[in-house]
Amino acid sequence: MKSFIVSFLLLVIGLTSPITQASSIVTGEDGYRLWMKYDLLQNKSLRKAYQKQLTKWSVVGQSETSQIIRDELDYALSGLLGQSEPAGYRSANLVVVTGRLATRWIPDLGDELSKLGDEGYIIRQVEHNNKSVIVVTANTDIGALYGTFNLLRLVQTQTPLDAVDISSAPKTKVRVLNHWDNPDRHVERGFAGESIWDWHKLPHYKYQKYTDYARANASIGINGTVLNNVNADPIMLTPAYLEKVKALADLFRPYGLKVYLSIKFNSPATLGGLKNSDPLNPQVAKWWDKKIAEIYQLIPDFGGFLVKANSEGQPGPGDYGRTHAQGANMLADALKPHGGIVMWRAFVYANEKNEERSKQAYSEFKPLDGKFRENVMVQVKNGPIDFQPREPISPLFGATQETPMMMEFQITMEYLGFSTHFVYLGPMYEEVLKTDTYAKGKGSTVGKVVAGEVYDYPLTGMAGVSNIGSDRNWTGHIILQSNWYVFGRMAWDYNISAEQVAEEWTRMTLSNKSAVVKKVTEMMMLSHEATVNYMTPLGLHHIMGTGHHYGPAPWVDDLGRADWNPVYYHRATKGGIGFDRSPSGVNAVEQYFSPLKEQLADPKSTPEKYLLWFHHLPWDYKVKSSGRTLWDEIVHRYYLGVDQVAQISQSWDSLQGQIDPLQFKQVQMANTIHLKEAIWWRNACVLYFQTFSQRPIPPGLDKPQGTLDTYKAMEFPYAPGQGE
Amino acid sequence: MKSFIVSFLLLVIGLTSPITQASSIVTGEDGYRLWMKYDLLQNKSLRKAYQKQLTKWSVVGQSETSQIIRDELDYALSGLLGQSEPAGYRSANLVVVTGRLATRWIPDLGDELSKLGDEGYIIRQVEHNNKSVIVVTANTDIGALYGTFNLLRLVQTQTPLDAVDISSAPKTKVRVLNHWDNPDRHVERGFAGESIWDWHKLPHYKYQKYTDYARANASIGINGTVLNNVNADPIMLTPAYLEKVKALADLFRPYGLKVYLSIKFNSPATLGGLKNSDPLNPQVAKWWDKKIAEIYQLIPDFGGFLVKANSEGQPGPGDYGRTHAQGANMLADALKPHGGIVMWRAFVYANEKNEERSKQAYSEFKPLDGKFRENVMVQVKNGPIDFQPREPISPLFGATQETPMMMEFQITMEYLGFSTHFVYLGPMYEEVLKTDTYAKGKGSTVGKVVAGEVYDYPLTGMAGVSNIGSDRNWTGHIILQSNWYVFGRMAWDYNISAEQVAEEWTRMTLSNKSAVVKKVTEMMMLSHEATVNYMTPLGLHHIMGTGHHYGPAPWVDDLGRADWNPVYYHRATKGGIGFDRSPSGVNAVEQYFSPLKEQLADPKSTPEKYLLWFHHLPWDYKVKSSGRTLWDEIVHRYYLGVDQVAQISQSWDSLQGQIDPLQFKQVQMANTIHLKEAIWWRNACVLYFQTFSQRPIPPGLDKPQGTLDTYKAMEFPYAPGQGE
Repeated sequence: MKSFIVSFLLLVIGLTSPITQASSIVTGEDGYRLWMKYDLLQNKSLRKAYQKQLTKWSVVGQSETSQIIRDELDYALSGLLGQSEPAGYRSANLVVVTGRLATRWIPDLGDELSKLGDEGYIIRQVEHNNKSVIVVTANTDIGALYGTFNLLRLVQTQTPLDAVDISSAPKTKVRVLNHWDNPDRHVERGFAGESIWDWHKLPHYKYQKYTDYARANASIGINGTVLNNVNADPIMLTPAYLEKVKALADLFRPYGLKVYLSIKFNSPATLGGLKNSDPLNPQVAKWWDKKIAEIYQLIPDFGGFLVKANSEGQPGPGDYGRTHAQGANMLADALKPHGGIVMWRAFVYANEKNEERSKQAYSEFKPLDGKFRENVMVQVKNGPIDFQPREPISPLFGATQETPMMMEFQITMEYLGFSTHFVYLGPMYEEVLKTDTYAKGKGSTVGKVVAGEVYDYPLTGMAGVSNIGSDRNWTGHIILQSNWYVFGRMAWDYNISAEQVAEEWTRMTLSNKSAVVKKVTEMMMLSHEATVNYMTPLGLHHIMGTGHHYGPAPWVDDLGRADWNPVYYHRATKGGIGFDRSPSGVNAVEQYFSPLKEQLADPKSTPEKYLLWFHHLPWDYKVKSSGRTLWDEIVHRYYLGVDQVAQISQSWDSLQGQIDPLQFKQVQMANTIHLKEAIWWRNACVLYFQTFSQRPIPPGLDKPQGTLDTYKAMEFPYAPGQGE
Repeated sequence: MKSFIVSFLLLVIGLTSPITQASSIVTGEDGYRLWMKYDLLQNKSLRKAYQKQLTKWSVVGQSETSQIIRDELDYALSGLLGQSEPAGYRSANLVVVTGRLATRWIPDLGDELSKLGDEGYIIRQVEHNNKSVIVVTANTDIGALYGTFNLLRLVQTQTPLDAVDISSAPKTKVRVLNHWDNPDRHVERGFAGESIWDWHKLPHYKYQKYTDYARANASIGINGTVLNNVNADPIMLTPAYLEKVKALADLFRPYGLKVYLSIKFNSPATLGGLKNSDPLNPQVAKWWDKKIAEIYQLIPDFGGFLVKANSEGQPGPGDYGRTHAQGANMLADALKPHGGIVMWRAFVYANEKNEERSKQAYSEFKPLDGKFRENVMVQVKNGPIDFQPREPISPLFGATQETPMMMEFQITMEYLGFSTHFVYLGPMYEEVLKTDTYAKGKGSTVGKVVAGEVYDYPLTGMAGVSNIGSDRNWTGHIILQSNWYVFGRMAWDYNISAEQVAEEWTRMTLSNKSAVVKKVTEMMMLSHEATVNYMTPLGLHHIMGTGHHYGPAPWVDDLGRADWNPVYYHRATKGGIGFDRSPSGVNAVEQYFSPLKEQLADPKSTPEKYLLWFHHLPWDYKVKSSGRTLWDEIVHRYYLGVDQVAQISQSWDSLQGQIDPLQFKQVQMANTIHLKEAIWWRNACVLYFQTFSQRPIPPGLDKPQGTLDTYKAMEFPYAPGQGE
């Protein structure tokens, strides 16, 4: 009986004690909505102002795209303002209208619009019939869609619209995502689940995510998508798969998103049964003509081909003694009558060539300048090696007067911590785009080269290797959505600052509260440098785990090709560390223009961030900025990187209660992994390099935990990317 | 100017024409919520009654599980009734309370509860202090959780609660899902995306889906999950992976969901470095002792092991000349002190043995009856071959007086159209469970055998091979959620009818409108028979595509093992078709009890659905039910199957506007594929078998389209399951 009474006491206590645990049923912002969150604006006075300006809207037009604009406005304004009212164009405060019809509201429009091309738009507040009206106008419905998303972005970021007057047109023509997605749904270097393309169920079963993907891309001005891996499977060109591609193209078309395919160069032989795939074989050209006509029969606005040829084992024109230009031009000629283009990758390096890897792309493509058709672009990675946390620019930017160099950025985090490290890539993209090539003297930045402003390229473009997968939040980590976002924004305008984008993305995705915006923007702006510090400070590169590129492995020296081994890149000895690419070494610097060439030739004038990329230096070399020895500086940077990650992690923790709990939790869990792995990177690298420097850890820094042997013994047979 | 006027006319038309297109922004029921949809009940009078009965609720208890019950009630009642009010237990109308405390509300409870065991519960309306109170009570918090889900199911299906009085306890003890999930996230025979377990990001990154998975299982009484593939990777037993397993176990524990692992039998050698993995080697037993202690250190309520041994290339005790019993017992002895069990699969068949495949499991395991420890169950597939659309029961059910036979059903649709065919498995499970084994005379149904009611097994269980993946809707097809659901319901109670479950699932998942419920239930109840008809009518089996099992391939005769080839199973010749397993043939029927044995020995008394499973019959054999020749009957059934699919598809189309548009659309898209593939099955099979029968298509049926050669030439290198 006694225990019964105790139980009753407990029962009463149970009933009165507060419920403190988090609920097991979690609903909230799971990340699916990306930056297109249209929750009610909390700033009431601003909301009132917007209500007056935007509630009654009218979209003129009958196309599918016009309907999409209507849906977006209705959905967004209902959410943001709590009010949305489709109205006749006479009574609307907001009018979306294309072409000459716009002069009804903007009588003095003149040829403003025509200067903005097919994708540009104007957002302008005008007086019309004694009433203030906001007009979004463009030459095409797609331009109007872009303008609508810009208008909504202004509202989402709480930018007042009084006297709004924006003209915008993209600075590059082709703004595409590259999906390294295989037909079995494995994504090469994908860290956010599997491919969003369910090829087996296409063409009939179409996920809502396909449409939402197109919408997200349209919202940031991305106008193309290469659906399949550059290590292409020829099956994509078979009739059954082209039907599947068509199903996606049909969904994407009203969002202005063109479909492209990666092709395998030897398809005429493997698919078509021809004797070879020699670009100068007329049968081969004929095969492509026919295949391309078949594609355009299904997809009249098909974008064209992306080609990885004679690179990492892929077939190409070199197999027949032909040049990249001969290969590309054969395809370009077949695509030309249909309006298609060729994006030909410059990522080539061969073990057999007696030339250092970073120099090979330039050596191969520079002499071909002027040899490519007008509908060909050469797509080159931002740096001369391979998407390292930091690289100097590829010397090909600015080197080709006649041949458009298309930028290839990596959005997915192959070398940057997969999908658990908090890394915003805006500062890295910005660093690249604002680097001066000096191609036509000072001011010839990479951004200008790519946009065709240094040489007047007929075609321009930027590609981003997608970080999108089947994960509910698209990118496996909410913060990494910002990298998809910033890629789109910078492909539209290379001038935009990473900080501005970080701020607008934060406002759209996380919160408009200024304290949150400030903190998150700071974390984001710090994050890339932090990662460089704990992974590859001072110009170190390619010291990641073998195959999967997960974690540190600077000790690896047993891979099939010299230039796959980390030791090839850091060249640490008892005497020092770094890769001498100066004139005293492999002289990679000669591929740059003066005065960049001279600046990089001398360690004294080389920016410290590239120091060990270009120079092999003794451990006691004095680092200018700090006065420390090189050894001490390397160690300091590794420790600094970890401290910065800890700082980001703490700063994030302080946001609890300030942002959606699901968003908060997701990033917090990833931060736990991030910090753990940053420490792993630091310890493993410092312990390893110490075996060469034979110097102590500088005073004030703790000894790295663990032993080098333990770090070397770690294995990750199922890390994403293993075996790729 | 003229065109300007025309444009303005269009503009006006544009503004006045109605918006008829579907919105590009789709929000709605995407399937993630499964059957736990708690939308406001539309039946107002019933809602009012429920509000009176349920709004004020009290959950007594402080455990994590109690908190989960609170969260569920709050979430569900707010949704279903628009009202939820946690209250003190004195003022509540609904009380959830465990153990002796329940006597405060049910004074005459007596030993009712104790008879219900650890998982059973009571839901009863009582008069308490002159007030009507609904009491949910159980011996444990998990029982109370199950009772709460049952109560909510009553509300969701609009069952009046007046005088409610339910006592329920599970008829089998171990009710587990088997995940055939690999550490690289590939799911063997998975058709709903990749594995939901993101091993790389565990233990730190825990998806909300993990919790929702546990909750869904708890809602239907599933109390265990085997996390990894029966073709097991030994890495799962390494310390790093056990930490990941622990993270999941910790999440699942308060939902009553125990974690089990599949193990590779040779782990002592491959992981532990021992000379062999012989179960009689004391070093081996010691290794398992230590490994198992390590597991229980992390996971005190770890469930145990599932073992696929000496089957399809997997290592096992047979490698050392030991029996399955010796292998299982060695593990059982090590698990015993911790309360763990062994589930040892009976799915064995060897090419080398000179015995027909369907007979081998019985031959191997029947003699071992009585040799297994008390904490071992033998897990046997429902039929003697391999999860065919229809099979007779495995003769092992009822054959072992001492050894519990655990049922293994397949929920994933390896042989049943992947995730695009509309197939409800309830009728198939029911057919199996209600089949009489005659083990102890009439009425010894499979269900009773499995539940330990024929022989008093100390341990009982049912396993379902999961159809769950990373797809947003869990199972790749909303209708296929019902198969997860019905597995759970029948594992709890083998007596429940497939039709009742179909109806309740429909009400919970799609709609409570009686017209919808009636139509969907009819479609569901028809769907399995339809699939048998267009795939494998009259007892045909295993004539699917090679490897992936996608589509028809009855012609395949070139696989490495005889019993992998479709021709081995259908045995079509000019003389007839079917597999003679009667006494005149391989005499598989001898493994059954009388009178089943005799019934199956004679084609006249063999149920037609198993006709060609047990008999090879001439094409002109007269089929009793129809009076048709065998050839005509086969063709008729293939055509009937397609007609039935068309009927399901049309019936579904008629639901437009009656159910959520997203649900409607998803199933509709899948139906398009289903019908196309049913026709493919029919055409290919009829054309192929016609080459033997050399008889015409019966009058009244259209000639099959296409040619056999075309069907034979079809290839699906990326169909899910290829290469498995």
